[in-house]
Formats: sequence, structure tokens, C-alpha cells
Amino acid sequence: MSQNRIIIFDTTLRDGEQVPGCKLNMDQKIKVALQLELLGVDVIEAGFPISSPGDFAAVEAICKAVKMPTVCGLSRAVEQDIKVAAEALKYAKNPRIHTGIGTSESHIVHKLRTTPEKVIERGVAAVKLAKSFVEDVEFYAEDAGRTDNEFLAKVIEAVIAAGATVVNIPDTTGYCLPGQYGAKIKYLVENVPNIHKAIISTHCHNDLGLATANSIYGVIHGARQIECTLNGVGERAGNTSLEEVVMVLKQHPELNLETGINTRLLNSMSRLVSESMAMPVQPNKAIVGANAFAHSSGIHQDGVIKRRDTYEIIDPLEVGVDESRIVLTARSGRAALAYRCKNIGYNLTKDELDIVYKKFLEVADRKKEVIDADLHLIMEEVQIAVNV
Amino acid sequence: MSQNRIIIFDTTLRDGEQVPGCKLNMDQKIKVALQLELLGVDVIEAGFPISSPGDFAAVEAICKAVKMPTVCGLSRAVEQDIKVAAEALKYAKNPRIHTGIGTSESHIVHKLRTTPEKVIERGVAAVKLAKSFVEDVEFYAEDAGRTDNEFLAKVIEAVIAAGATVVNIPDTTGYCLPGQYGAKIKYLVENVPNIHKAIISTHCHNDLGLATANSIYGVIHGARQIECTLNGVGERAGNTSLEEVVMVLKQHPELNLETGINTRLLNSMSRLVSESMAMPVQPNKAIVGANAFAHSSGIHQDGVIKRRDTYEIIDPLEVGVDESRIVLTARSGRAALAYRCKNIGYNLTKDELDIVYKKFLEVADRKKEVIDADLHLIMEEVQIAVNV
Repeated sequence: MSQNRIIIFDTTLRDGEQVPGCKLNMDQKIKVALQLELLGVDVIEAGFPISSPGDFAAVEAICKAVKMPTVCGLSRAVEQDIKVAAEALKYAKNPRIHTGIGTSESHIVHKLRTTPEKVIERGVAAVKLAKSFVEDVEFYAEDAGRTDNEFLAKVIEAVIAAGATVVNIPDTTGYCLPGQYGAKIKYLVENVPNIHKAIISTHCHNDLGLATANSIYGVIHGARQIECTLNGVGERAGNTSLEEVVMVLKQHPELNLETGINTRLLNSMSRLVSESMAMPVQPNKAIVGANAFAHSSGIHQDGVIKRRDTYEIIDPLEVGVDESRIVLTARSGRAALAYRCKNIGYNLTKDELDIVYKKFLEVADRKKEVIDADLHLIMEEVQIAVNV
Repeated sequence: MSQNRIIIFDTTLRDGEQVPGCKLNMDQKIKVALQLELLGVDVIEAGFPISSPGDFAAVEAICKAVKMPTVCGLSRAVEQDIKVAAEALKYAKNPRIHTGIGTSESHIVHKLRTTPEKVIERGVAAVKLAKSFVEDVEFYAEDAGRTDNEFLAKVIEAVIAAGATVVNIPDTTGYCLPGQYGAKIKYLVENVPNIHKAIISTHCHNDLGLATANSIYGVIHGARQIECTLNGVGERAGNTSLEEVVMVLKQHPELNLETGINTRLLNSMSRLVSESMAMPVQPNKAIVGANAFAHSSGIHQDGVIKRRDTYEIIDPLEVGVDESRIVLTARSGRAALAYRCKNIGYNLTKDELDIVYKKFLEVADRKKEVIDADLHLIMEEVQIAVNV
């Protein structure tokens, strides 16, 4: 794989599915996994096998169903977790065990109630045990975002020496600023002697709305895997949105980083996840929201009609949206109105347009959106006939 | 105002309200404006007066209704726009006219079909005209995100010389990476000789999911006003979310930047905007989503029960949410189950917990969320009585 290829690790079925109300049944999970394979994700985190019998069965079934992607199962740095994960992954063509432990002071002192030394010991033991089952072992340093860099480097060096092939640096609480997160990855690249033996992974949460930026700053500074979910589903404010990081990399070729994602499937993939989880995507969601390519103000509509890229940086077709929608509202201008009138059969002179526009504004001030039927009524009222 | 005070410019009623389906009636607009005043925003962009008679009337009514905030009206760099905006603002205690023109090559060549020199001329003329009506004039360089920095600096210098008090640098298409946007602001600070006579404003769009990060990088590099909307509503993928930038600044005191926002009103303000516009906020929206403070995985629940800040960086009360919700699902662990059982009256021994947990997982594998009624049924089945 090229040095500039970013591995897309999708955790919709694990970090996404564990959210209140997002539980999927077995058939839904397999359908999502098969679509993720088509989308071109490199790794599917299929579940947390020890967490429930249903989760175990789902991971096992997904291993049997998909061919290309690596299938990953989550575990804590706990013997039984790792054994059960290995068992659930036994049918995978490319299995990966994801194991780890909290490394921040908050996690060590208040949650684990242990010492930094014990944390390293447990992490190393977990990686070694996982390695006895599978070649591909990913280690997560939970709450790495708030972990002291010097201690984090020690942990990472130890787990790579123990056999970790991927080291995941989660900003578990979504706290970091992009520059801080990027600097953390850079610190590891520069201060962990054996870092070239593993792939660094980002795993960012969106509590402050910074997950996408943080992930991008992670790969700019040397990470080569991004953990993410469709629609950004996940604990609390969710995880990094797959569709956003993929499109940032695609729209910024100067970064010289690429993914294997077939972006034309992003829209349908987003809908499948949203519908299966009954988890709405807000209309103003980047890339996959219903309004992401809709233009309503007159200034914008005029621009887009003249040339698409005045207000659109992404061709909607690239992400599987049929066309950008020009919506007529009270904020629409003459250019958009004339354009739409022409589309429905009325080629207006400048004087006619003035008359129609005035009527249009009256209607638009009463209604949220002026549709074609309203325009036909206006034409009737001002006695303009179809002429194109 | 202190050097470190960031001015919050809310454009929910202009850039937000112009979105398909988001139209508000007069009463709703006034209610939102009054709540924005309570929230502590510094500037309310109330509308685009020339765009329709309804918009004109709304701007006028908001000027009469609010006392503290500056009220701003949008206009293009067009004589009639500016005159109408001035007329609509005549009752404002602190009126501001916002005028401007496209400065990127794409806008100059394809949309305006003019020359760079003419754009500067029109910008200067617009500012001068606006200045003849009000003292406070904001100039926007539309599509500044894709405008050559050297030309942008020329435009900004000219409009400040003409009297602009605020210069707005919009990333109209949501294209910039945080570092690029920050560098653009820094370039203006360093290369516009009269820049100290005006306030630099950010205005970012969220097409790639980077609006919050870009706005923060703008203020880190010298901007002192952020234009934003509640819930990030706005054209296409929307604008910068007010609640996100405000909480980033609050959670990162090391930036030494503050706003005047009463964050405890963020949640109710978000709901008012969402309900008035019938514009849903996705559950995994940062700060104001329904799940933003909900914990469902066992690992997270155990941590939060031991100490809130293991998985929460923001105290929910700070943004007006009553408490973080522990939701019981198939991913919940023993700690969360025991905690909830105790809350509803059952203090379980370790052995009892093992039995109840097994039953709980069976129920959880069938149901999305296990509620208290389910727990009471389980207790009945395993014959455990209320004991606390």
C-alpha cells in the first residue's frame, strides 16, 4: 500500500451501534457490512464480542459474509474479552483484534484505580495474548487525547514491541483542538523509536464539533488510518464522519493523501445507516444532509445557474446525489425565478419577469417554498402563456 | 471591549432563515431575536431587507424589539440594497449595514463578469454609501476562502480606508482547511496596513465539516468576530454552529479568548430555533444533540459513574442540560446496571447482580433500550425484592 494511502476503518457497527436507539438486528448488520465492503472501507469493526451474545453472533456472521475488508472485534485489555473476540473472528479472512486500556491520568486514577506501570503491563499482556490468536493486533490508548505525551510514547513503544500492528490514539472525550491532536501524532512519530513498525490510527469524537478537523490533522502529521462512522453516529455527539474525512481528502489533492472509497456510494450508504438505525441525519449535515446541495438565496442561485463552482466545491454526482436543487423561497432572486420559469415552459421578457417576480414575492412571503404549481397559477393570473 | 473578547454575530435569522423550509413568520422572528438578546449575542443579523417585503418588515420589527445587541441588515454592493437596508434599520439602537461583493476569480469572472479593479471600486462605493447612513459598516469579501491573498489584502485595505468598521472574510463554499483559513487571517493582519482600524470577522460554511475548526483558527490568528447560527443552520451544509465555537472557547481557556454568551441558555435556544424552523437537530449533534450527554456503552457508563470527567469534558448543566443520561442497552455493563437498579430500589449483592445481568442481556438483545419497567419485570422473575 502506498505511503499516501489512508486506511478507512469503519466503526459504524461498533462505536455507532452502541448508541441509545441504534441497535440493529442481525440481518441489518450483515446488510450494512456488505455495503461497507462495496463502499471500499478497508477495515470493518463489527462489534464488541464479549459485550453480549447478540454481538458475538453478529461479529461471527459478518466474518463469514465479507471477503475483502479486515474484520475487527473490540476487547478490553482483559483475558476473557480477547479470547472471546478471537473466537468470534475465527471465520474472518483478515481478522484483527482491537484491544487496549485507558492511559490518561483521569482513566488510570479514577476509572482503573491503578498505576501507570500497571497500565503498560496490562497493555503489553493484552497485545501478546491477542497476537497468539491473530497476526493483526490494534492497540488503543483510551483517552490518549488527554494523556501526557511522554507517557503515551512509552505505552506505544511497549505495545509495538509486543506485536501491535496498529496503534490507535483516541481523542475519547472529543477535547483536542486540531493543532493539539496533530502535535500529539507528530510527537509519537518523532519520539517512539519503533513507530515505523506500526500504523498510527486516529479515533476522534465530535463533542466540540472538531472530529473531522482533528482526524485530518492526524493524517497530515503521520497517522495512516482514520476510524470513523457513517453520518458520524457514535457515543454522545458521535464519531468522525466517514463521508466528511473522505471528501476533505478528495477535495484537497494538495495533501497528497487518498482513500479507497467509492464516493458515489456515500449518499446511499448514509441513507442505509440512517434508516436501519432510525437515526435521523439533519438536513444541514455536511456531504449527506438533504440540503447539502440545495441553494435557496437569490445571490447563490444566480451564481450556481451561471457556473456551478461559484457556490459548490463538490459536484453532487461525486457523492451520489442526482443534482443540486434550486429551491424557490422569499430569498430567491430574479435569475433563479427566470431559470425555473423557463424550465417549466415560460420564457419571460425582462418586463414580464418584473411583474411575475413581484407576484412571486407575495406568494413566497406566505409560503415556505414556491413550487411549480404556484408558478403556473401566477402565470395564469398575470396572463402569460407557455411559450417554450 | 477587551482584546480577547470574541464578538458573537448570529445570522440564524438571515443565513439560517434563507434555507429551504426554514422560513419563520414575524412573531417567530421576534421571539428568536429576543432570545438571542438574552443568550448574550453581540450582533443579530436580522435579514436581507431588499430581498422581500416580509424580510424588510422583520428587520424593522427586530430593531424595535431588541435593546442591547447591534442589529445588522444584509445588502449587496448595490445602491438600492443599501438604501433599503438603511431604511429597515432606522429604529435600531445600534444599526449595522453589512455590504459586500465577490472577490474570488470564480466570482469576478463567472458570476459578476467584471474585473478586479471594478470589484474594488464597487466595494468602496458601497461602504461609503452605507457609511452615509450608519457609523457601523461591515464589508464582506464573498468567497474570500478561495480569493488570492494579495488581492484580498488590497480589497480590505481599500474598504477600511472607505470607512468599514468590520471586515468579513467568508469561506463561502466551505472549502478551506483550518490551517489555510488561519493563514489567510494572519496574512491580512500582517499585510493590510490599516487593519487595526477594523475588526476581522470569520464566516465559515460547513460543506466539508470544518466550519467550527476554521472559525477557531480564524480567531486564534487575529479575527475577533465569529459569524454563526444556532444548530449550524444555513445554506447547504450550513454555517458555523454558535454552540460549538462558544463551547470550544470555554473549554480551552489556554486560548485566552472569551465570549459574552450565557451558555446555560444554549440548549433551550437550540430547541427554540429547531422547533420554529421545523429543522431537526440530529441526536449526535455536538453540544445540543439529544445524545450529546448520553452514555450507553458499559465501559463509558462505568467510567462516568465513578467520575464524570472520565468521559465528559463538559458538565451538561453548563449548557442547560439537566443531567447526563445513562441508557441501558446490550452494550451496558454490570456497573451501569447495578447503578440503575439501586436508583429504582434494588441494592444487589454480587451474586444477585450476576443473575440479573444475564437476564438483562437477554432482554437487551431483543430491545433497543432497557427501561425501568423491564428491570422490575426481571426482578420479579428472579425473585429479588425492593430493598433500598
